[in-house]
Amino acid sequence: MAKKKKKKLRSLLSKRKAHARKAPGTAPGTVQYTGDQKVDEVSIKVHDYDVDHVEHISIADIEESRPFLENSSKTWINVTGLHDVDKLKSIWKYFDLHPLVQEDIVNTSQRPKVETYDNCIFFVLRMLSFDPENKSLVSEQISVVLGSNYVLSFQETDSNYFQPIFNRLEAGGRIRTQPTDYLAYALLDTVVDHYFNVIEQIGNEIEEVENILFEDEETNQDLLQKVHHIRREVVFLRKSVWPLRDALNTAIRDDSDFISDHTKLFLRDVYDHMIQVIDSVENYRDMVLSLHDLYMSSMSNRMNEIMKVLTIIATIFIPLTFIAGIYGMNFDPEASPYNMPELSWYWGYPASIAIMVVLALIMLYYFKRKGWL
Amino acid sequence: MAKKKKKKLRSLLSKRKAHARKAPGTAPGTVQYTGDQKVDEVSIKVHDYDVDHVEHISIADIEESRPFLENSSKTWINVTGLHDVDKLKSIWKYFDLHPLVQEDIVNTSQRPKVETYDNCIFFVLRMLSFDPENKSLVSEQISVVLGSNYVLSFQETDSNYFQPIFNRLEAGGRIRTQPTDYLAYALLDTVVDHYFNVIEQIGNEIEEVENILFEDEETNQDLLQKVHHIRREVVFLRKSVWPLRDALNTAIRDDSDFISDHTKLFLRDVYDHMIQVIDSVENYRDMVLSLHDLYMSSMSNRMNEIMKVLTIIATIFIPLTFIAGIYGMNFDPEASPYNMPELSWYWGYPASIAIMVVLALIMLYYFKRKGWL
Amino acid sequence: MAKKKKKKLRSLLSKRKAHARKAPGTAPGTVQYTGDQKVDEVSIKVHDYDVDHVEHISIADIEESRPFLENSSKTWINVTGLHDVDKLKSIWKYFDLHPLVQEDIVNTSQRPKVETYDNCIFFVLRMLSFDPENKSLVSEQISVVLGSNYVLSFQETDSNYFQPIFNRLEAGGRIRTQPTDYLAYALLDTVVDHYFNVIEQIGNEIEEVENILFEDEETNQDLLQKVHHIRREVVFLRKSVWPLRDALNTAIRDDSDFISDHTKLFLRDVYDHMIQVIDSVENYRDMVLSLHDLYMSSMSNRMNEIMKVLTIIATIFIPLTFIAGIYGMNFDPEASPYNMPELSWYWGYPASIAIMVVLALIMLYYFKRKGWL
Amino acid sequence: MAKKKKKKLRSLLSKRKAHARKAPGTAPGTVQYTGDQKVDEVSIKVHDYDVDHVEHISIADIEESRPFLENSSKTWINVTGLHDVDKLKSIWKYFDLHPLVQEDIVNTSQRPKVETYDNCIFFVLRMLSFDPENKSLVSEQISVVLGSNYVLSFQETDSNYFQPIFNRLEAGGRIRTQPTDYLAYALLDTVVDHYFNVIEQIGNEIEEVENILFEDEETNQDLLQKVHHIRREVVFLRKSVWPLRDALNTAIRDDSDFISDHTKLFLRDVYDHMIQVIDSVENYRDMVLSLHDLYMSSMSNRMNEIMKVLTIIATIFIPLTFIAGIYGMNFDPEASPYNMPELSWYWGYPASIAIMVVLALIMLYYFKRKGWL
Amino acid sequence: MAKKKKKKLRSLLSKRKAHARKAPGTAPGTVQYTGDQKVDEVSIKVHDYDVDHVEHISIADIEESRPFLENSSKTWINVTGLHDVDKLKSIWKYFDLHPLVQEDIVNTSQRPKVETYDNCIFFVLRMLSFDPENKSLVSEQISVVLGSNYVLSFQETDSNYFQPIFNRLEAGGRIRTQPTDYLAYALLDTVVDHYFNVIEQIGNEIEEVENILFEDEETNQDLLQKVHHIRREVVFLRKSVWPLRDALNTAIRDDSDFISDHTKLFLRDVYDHMIQVIDSVENYRDMVLSLHDLYMSSMSNRMNEIMKVLTIIATIFIPLTFIAGIYGMNFDPEASPYNMPELSWYWGYPASIAIMVVLALIMLYYFKRKGWL
Repeated sequence: MAKKKKKKLRSLLSKRKAHARKAPGTAPGTVQYTGDQKVDEVSIKVHDYDVDHVEHISIADIEESRPFLENSSKTWINVTGLHDVDKLKSIWKYFDLHPLVQEDIVNTSQRPKVETYDNCIFFVLRMLSFDPENKSLVSEQISVVLGSNYVLSFQETDSNYFQPIFNRLEAGGRIRTQPTDYLAYALLDTVVDHYFNVIEQIGNEIEEVENILFEDEETNQDLLQKVHHIRREVVFLRKSVWPLRDALNTAIRDDSDFISDHTKLFLRDVYDHMIQVIDSVENYRDMVLSLHDLYMSSMSNRMNEIMKVLTIIATIFIPLTFIAGIYGMNFDPEASPYNMPELSWYWGYPASIAIMVVLALIMLYYFKRKGWL
Repeated sequence: MAKKKKKKLRSLLSKRKAHARKAPGTAPGTVQYTGDQKVDEVSIKVHDYDVDHVEHISIADIEESRPFLENSSKTWINVTGLHDVDKLKSIWKYFDLHPLVQEDIVNTSQRPKVETYDNCIFFVLRMLSFDPENKSLVSEQISVVLGSNYVLSFQETDSNYFQPIFNRLEAGGRIRTQPTDYLAYALLDTVVDHYFNVIEQIGNEIEEVENILFEDEETNQDLLQKVHHIRREVVFLRKSVWPLRDALNTAIRDDSDFISDHTKLFLRDVYDHMIQVIDSVENYRDMVLSLHDLYMSSMSNRMNEIMKVLTIIATIFIPLTFIAGIYGMNFDPEASPYNMPELSWYWGYPASIAIMVVLALIMLYYFKRKGWL
Repeated sequence: MAKKKKKKLRSLLSKRKAHARKAPGTAPGTVQYTGDQKVDEVSIKVHDYDVDHVEHISIADIEESRPFLENSSKTWINVTGLHDVDKLKSIWKYFDLHPLVQEDIVNTSQRPKVETYDNCIFFVLRMLSFDPENKSLVSEQISVVLGSNYVLSFQETDSNYFQPIFNRLEAGGRIRTQPTDYLAYALLDTVVDHYFNVIEQIGNEIEEVENILFEDEETNQDLLQKVHHIRREVVFLRKSVWPLRDALNTAIRDDSDFISDHTKLFLRDVYDHMIQVIDSVENYRDMVLSLHDLYMSSMSNRMNEIMKVLTIIATIFIPLTFIAGIYGMNFDPEASPYNMPELSWYWGYPASIAIMVVLALIMLYYFKRKGWL
Repeated sequence: MAKKKKKKLRSLLSKRKAHARKAPGTAPGTVQYTGDQKVDEVSIKVHDYDVDHVEHISIADIEESRPFLENSSKTWINVTGLHDVDKLKSIWKYFDLHPLVQEDIVNTSQRPKVETYDNCIFFVLRMLSFDPENKSLVSEQISVVLGSNYVLSFQETDSNYFQPIFNRLEAGGRIRTQPTDYLAYALLDTVVDHYFNVIEQIGNEIEEVENILFEDEETNQDLLQKVHHIRREVVFLRKSVWPLRDALNTAIRDDSDFISDHTKLFLRDVYDHMIQVIDSVENYRDMVLSLHDLYMSSMSNRMNEIMKVLTIIATIFIPLTFIAGIYGMNFDPEASPYNMPELSWYWGYPASIAIMVVLALIMLYYFKRKGWL
Repeated sequence: MAKKKKKKLRSLLSKRKAHARKAPGTAPGTVQYTGDQKVDEVSIKVHDYDVDHVEHISIADIEESRPFLENSSKTWINVTGLHDVDKLKSIWKYFDLHPLVQEDIVNTSQRPKVETYDNCIFFVLRMLSFDPENKSLVSEQISVVLGSNYVLSFQETDSNYFQPIFNRLEAGGRIRTQPTDYLAYALLDTVVDHYFNVIEQIGNEIEEVENILFEDEETNQDLLQKVHHIRREVVFLRKSVWPLRDALNTAIRDDSDFISDHTKLFLRDVYDHMIQVIDSVENYRDMVLSLHDLYMSSMSNRMNEIMKVLTIIATIFIPLTFIAGIYGMNFDPEASPYNMPELSWYWGYPASIAIMVVLALIMLYYFKRKGWL
């Protein structure tokens, strides 16, 4: 059990470690993947769609996407895997991306942000989800490049976060009729929607700990570790959601032509959801502090209970043992009539027992009145 | 007792759960009720009024409200129950509401907000009240659409929060003479007024816990749970009142024609009340932290008292028992004149008792001087 | 003693209760006194003054003030008692006050504020003073209406807060030569000056608790209650002073004709004092937190001391008692030469006593080195 | 020792008391010295200087300064002692100072501020220094009036804070060539420089407490008092430095002619130092909180150690004593073969001793493994 | 071990001491080195480069740099060592630096800042690195003067922080083709990159402490010291990074000609990194607080465990010892049939043992149910 807990902690820590960076002094704009390889191969998938049709084609070389980009339909190119920098470079070159954009795509510890360039808008998003297996937060950087008639997205793993969007593309509706900026919005909305899942998970964890604290008799180091783990998750979540709020705000106020006013209305809706997420995160922050206070208070309560048991037992029996000790003394009754005459009294023993019982009852009454029993 | 407490906690948690949302990636503007069904049927009630008359009519179909909307009198349509999305859709269509408004009305975990659209102003409010039965906060989303000559309000339950407004409509006065924006203000004012009730309730709970902490001998896990419960209530209340402040501010600064300057004067009054509510909530936040500190200090005090009892008893009797133990040793007085000659002294036993009494008195004097008695 | 303390706490809590409000949904502008009746009768006192003369006249009906208002001298009408709404209404009507002003005058739980109307400036102030009898903060709402040539003030009780101003009116000087806005400023200044008294009182209470914590041997639940009481007082004070700062700022920036630039210079001085009060309140907030930490640390110190006494006594005597117990065993020396031969040794008893003494000395030396003695 | 500590605390508290004020309701602009008399007599010293000469003359009457003020050289008039209001009034009248300036000069509990009047700029500064004798902060209000060709400064005591400036006047250099605003800057710079000394002193105190906490065996109430004392010093320091930052900002943005652009460049430098002071104060605030946590943790550590000693001793000897108690029972072996036959076994006594030794060793091993030894 | 820890603490404290300043009242602009001499001699190194060549020349006198400055290539002059003010003065004079710039270069406790002068832009940076030897933060002030065609940098030690830049100069690329402002950016970027290293180190330390707290049995004063040490490191780091953020912002908004728009794009990238650093620092601040709470909770857990051991042992054996004590009493069975007849019962001894065993089992069952075993 303790083993598993430890593993859980590690996985969160290693996420922090993944924020490793290139060596200090390295030339800026240096393209270097800072994560671990997570898929076998970089795969490129083209989703070409307009009101009338939708196509999903896997391509090996970015040049193969040319016909889709050149026709009048809208094109979404989704790239999975970031470890093969050479292949990525061919894509970047094809779309003529700025060196800093290139650097940010593969440096997978970026803060969420939105940046406007001459030929595109560039979003860095952080997809968070809850890995049910080892009960920890999983984080993945999603980069989205919104050009005039295409959306280019990069993700580290072949996770199926965007499956619902594929489905909506298939199903038709607004997503097919609107320009590509609406697709970019849909990707963003999906990321934010996932935050709600994470928040619910953390809420469940908090509730679980609360229940253990209020119901179970025994709390231990494991529970403390859990409280600490939740605390770190909230810290981690905060680090992801606050910058995205600012990024969204930038996007809404953006006056380039890449995002239409119509789509901005929807972005404002995402922004509202973001604020809701932030509200929840801030509340969870309060709650986790409260949880720790609760843990400490529970400890104190338990300590008090332990001390009460000890005090009751010791306080009752120590005086009795003393009385028994008195009559265990070996003063010689024959040497003097004052030497323990009680020992040869007719009612001596019963009287001593009676005294002990009375003493014990007085103690018990005292504890009762103190509310210790 | 503990059972009931647990139920109380749950009900607050389940409220959080009600903030469940549609699945990530779902198309925006998707209309999907996220709460539990709370009334049997969606009911529509039309309140038609002007200076001279007031009428209350229940209608089955929104089309039936046409005559009231078309005449010159003011019309308030109150919809109760949000689970029957089809019926709601007919209403929305009738009033031509924006898809995002529609989504927000049934997604009952919205933050309070005010949004201006072309044909209406849309308010999302959160009515809070204190359920006396299981002593917990009850939350309900109220949506108000203020059009040019109508007010459309949506609530989840058939609670009678708006009864006083029905009464005022009957009674006549300003509410009958003023345009519909004044009615919208009256609804808003009612919601804010309820916050004062909630604040008073929480104040009572805080006071109750304080009294227990200062007067009763015994505090326990239940009390801790109560403190934690109040803390969560304050967190929950904060989450509701802060956004409403911003929303109100937006409404006051709104330059559309839906809200007259005359009504804005009253909105400013509601805004003042809102600030007062926020002041109280912030103070309660401080007080609840103080309450927890108080609990911890009380625990410490009690622990000290328990330890004092144990220490006094143990410190007095352990040395006495040791003396009794000495004279219970079986050294053979006949083997040597140095072997426990006290045992055969004439005053041996009384002297040993006297020593014990003196020792006990010294100890008691010491504790007295330490202030432990 | 505990009784009195409890009374003290109550009185602060009841103040909060006085913040009761009209029922939710009541029409805004409803005039309803929300405090307790504190004087027998509503009394009206007219202070008519100019450079040359000063008159103080009690009047029964507001109509009697007409001659004073119509002449060229300046007029201050002070109303004491807010429970007789009918009488108040006659005054309000006479001066043509806005309904919201009327509501605020009798709703005695307003936040301090300044509002400009067409015919007057309206101040809501909160007078705080320290009731020496039951050692608690007393709060009273003071409303001031500054018209073109009159000042109208309302207070709940017949407290003599404004006595110094009566004296200054009598004495002559700037207050007689300046227009009525200077009188309004003088009232405001008096309120702020009282805050300094309250701050000094709280400072004294903090100091008192500090002294007890650092000097006296015994601390108890009463002291904890005192710390908590001070904490609540600071919270209460904060709630009063922060809004007044904003209100003063509003008054200084006000561009109506009711306040002259000359008087604004003095208002700026009051504003500076206000900032000083707020600084002190914020510092006290820190100090009270510090005080609680101090209390907890003191508790810990005391607990450590208690534990040390117990540990020293138990650690010394338990092993000694064990040795005595050994030689109290009844093994039959005749059954075997190995059975407790010590009992019949010549130096047996002295040797056992010597061992005990040595053991005790070792223990004492150990505790000495640990610094426990 | 405890006596001295107590004195230390007092001196800080009495400083707060010195913030006493005139009675509420007193006319504003009332000139009344609120501190204690600290020098025998109010002394006036004129420092007249220009590029070519410097003169220091003590004068008894302000009229004597006329020749210096009327000539073309720059004049600094330094007034020491604020208790003789009549003498001060003659000075104020001579320079035609505004009543509020007069009030602020003698009310020695002002916040640091900068105010511009028609004929002068008025600075209120708070000089802080560390009194090495009773190890506490000493505070003194310095008022500086910067007129067109003079600087007028007021201080409560004859402290030699400005000695270095006298020296620089003697030595010549920029201070002699620049106009009087540069002298005012030099005074201000000196005050801010003293803050660095105070900060270093507090840093030393923090370090001292840290060393005691980490090295010495024994901590006690005195140390707690010291931590609390430092905490109050930081609170006090904060109260002085924050307002000065704003005041400096005001001075830099000031567009009157009293401060030249050239001097503003230097003021900006003082402002930078001020920010550095504030950074340090904020860091110390964090550190002092950390210090208290450290104290509490140390207490806990010590308590744990005490409890461990008690537990080890009690846990080892209580079972052994029980065994000894068993064989101290007086069951009659002759009444039955089952009655304590061990007592007459050949190896009875050695065996019982052996059992005890083994038991003790097991316990010791258990504690060793627990890491308690 | 404890020795080494102490040294670690010292080194951090001494850094604070290095913030010593010139005496209060000293003339501003006074050039005085406030650090310790860290290199033998002030050395000047010229790096002259353009697209076609790069040269590194050590010079003894600044005059020797004239040919490099006058030709068309770009020149970077790096000065190591700040103790020889005369030599520095010759450099400053050569470049005509403002007196306040001169003062800031040698006053090595400046806050990071950016200031624009007529002939240059002046950066004060704080290089932080982690000294692996005595595991503490090492801080060094780096001053950079960016002129029209040169970069002048000053550092206290001959650390090789800028080695990677030398390498890049050698290797060619953007750094050789861009103007000098790009070099200044590269220096800045290197400083910020080092912050990531420091952050990672602190992260490792936090993780290490967490592991000890969760895994090891024994925590002690050393660990507490470590927590406190990390806390101070975070405070120290914060003090360095926050001002740099503002400074960078100033540089980006700067409208002088020294920084080209092209370079500003890169500065914005550094700014983003800076925000990321600040995010991490703020998170670490939370985490360190959490760490201390963790420590305290661990202490409480351990205390509870100790108390449980004591309570179990004492609670089981004290009653048993009492029973043994009873039958150790010496009441004379011959004096009365009621005097301890049990002693001569046939099953007396076995029965008493049986009672003890049953009692012990009941206790054990009770503790089991309480979850203490």
